[in-house]
Amino acid sequence: MNHEDFLEAYLKDRQKIVEEALERYLPDEDSVPEELHTAAHYSVFAGGKRIRPILCLAAAEACGADMAPAMPAACALELIHTYSLIHDDLPAMDNDDVRRGKATSHKVFGEALAILAGDALLTEAFVLLSRVEKVRLPAERRLAVIQEIASAAGIAGMVGGQALDIRAEKIPPDAAGLTEIHRRKTGALIVASVRTGAILAGAGEAKLQALTQYADHIGMAFQIADDILNVEGDSRLMGKKTGSDAAHGKVTYPSLLGMDAAKARLAEHVEAAVAALAAFDARALPLRMIARYIMERKS
Amino acid sequence: MNHEDFLEAYLKDRQKIVEEALERYLPDEDSVPEELHTAAHYSVFAGGKRIRPILCLAAAEACGADMAPAMPAACALELIHTYSLIHDDLPAMDNDDVRRGKATSHKVFGEALAILAGDALLTEAFVLLSRVEKVRLPAERRLAVIQEIASAAGIAGMVGGQALDIRAEKIPPDAAGLTEIHRRKTGALIVASVRTGAILAGAGEAKLQALTQYADHIGMAFQIADDILNVEGDSRLMGKKTGSDAAHGKVTYPSLLGMDAAKARLAEHVEAAVAALAAFDARALPLRMIARYIMERKS
Repeated sequence: MNHEDFLEAYLKDRQKIVEEALERYLPDEDSVPEELHTAAHYSVFAGGKRIRPILCLAAAEACGADMAPAMPAACALELIHTYSLIHDDLPAMDNDDVRRGKATSHKVFGEALAILAGDALLTEAFVLLSRVEKVRLPAERRLAVIQEIASAAGIAGMVGGQALDIRAEKIPPDAAGLTEIHRRKTGALIVASVRTGAILAGAGEAKLQALTQYADHIGMAFQIADDILNVEGDSRLMGKKTGSDAAHGKVTYPSLLGMDAAKARLAEHVEAAVAALAAFDARALPLRMIARYIMERKS
Repeated sequence: MNHEDFLEAYLKDRQKIVEEALERYLPDEDSVPEELHTAAHYSVFAGGKRIRPILCLAAAEACGADMAPAMPAACALELIHTYSLIHDDLPAMDNDDVRRGKATSHKVFGEALAILAGDALLTEAFVLLSRVEKVRLPAERRLAVIQEIASAAGIAGMVGGQALDIRAEKIPPDAAGLTEIHRRKTGALIVASVRTGAILAGAGEAKLQALTQYADHIGMAFQIADDILNVEGDSRLMGKKTGSDAAHGKVTYPSLLGMDAAKARLAEHVEAAVAALAAFDARALPLRMIARYIMERKS
């Protein structure tokens, strides 16, 4: 089996495990208003790649721990990611009708329920992070993870990045400004995903720092790859229209740097991410492969 | 000084202390996009009564603890309450232009920033609950508080209640349905406020149960009083139009039970709340007075 086939099988397997856990962790149908349950489920199971939970679990394993104790946090990260997509797609925000080939939440359930489904998923992430678990982890470690994830999702991270992104529609950013937007809007939660796995595994400061470097680089790589796919990708594979950034006059890495320089920068981030893992043994192989996958993915 | 003057002075003093803490705890202007900071501040300092943080601090004191260690959690509760108001007021939800005599967030900052300001305040509440404090509390206790607050704000509590409220616009509820809506939409966070203070104070199970009863009754009393004020209140004192429930054909306690029966039920809840505190000493006096204040308040 070559690396590409191995990674594909690995990601598929992990997606399945994460989705089974998400199904278990979401509140019962009985305990919630049915329409809210339906809307929350719809978006959580709308075909995400589960890259944040997979990174969290892989980081825990790279640090020598089992993945099971990290599963609630991994799923909490996916709930937060999903909430951010639902709110981003709202008419007042990006006004997107389709995501991953499916109608967005507000198109299916209306704006009010879409807002509430997002609010619910964000809040349930913290229920999941704080609830009593069968797997006992030190409470200090769990508090540190809550702080990590809340900070990454909050004003200093994702929500702040989203506000900067709205501003960028009026005042186009330069390359440094674009990097700042992405580091907060998508990078912060990817860094938190990797760090969360490491913290729950009880990683020491050196490993935590190395993994933070790794995650920072793959976060940037992920965003540059997204921008490139928006120009060159196959819309059938991606489940959404390509060329939308250019049509909206959106500032992207290819538009700022040119396509060749954007691809070169993508490759640099991937190499730097892999280099950051130099001190890790074979258990970090999935993290290394995920970094390369970002550059090669088609959707 | 009679009871009424004492309570007024007490509430004013506590509002001031809470507002100073909120100012300290909110992220610096430097660390956030300015427009998001402005929008978040605008709603947090739009003249709330701070009843949830005051209840949290008073519950900690009723259990014999200082209020200082409970201050971050008290402020987190107010941030969550504020987020819920911002999102409730959105055009897709209640579409309210004015609250507490001031233009609502989306009227001032636009819908996109209002959605983000709400998201930011909800998330920052969990930053506040999880961050390292100078006052050391057992990590287990802090985790229990996060679970308490997240559950009360989530699908089983506030967000679920909001979804039921939207449904109620189409299918008018009966008295039991209305109670279910209020218990989740406003009651759950009031119960969590009181329980949070008690948990942080290290209260035993008997005291925690008694305070839960107290909070459940004042939560219901608060909502019935709101409904009554919407009919009989002075719009100048309240900073919003009265009669809006009737104009919108909204089902309320007075409309379902009649005004006399609604007032009788309000009085019953206040009495039951005070009775639940029978085993507490004089340190529970503020909690007792707050219960009576709910019945007598004019705004």
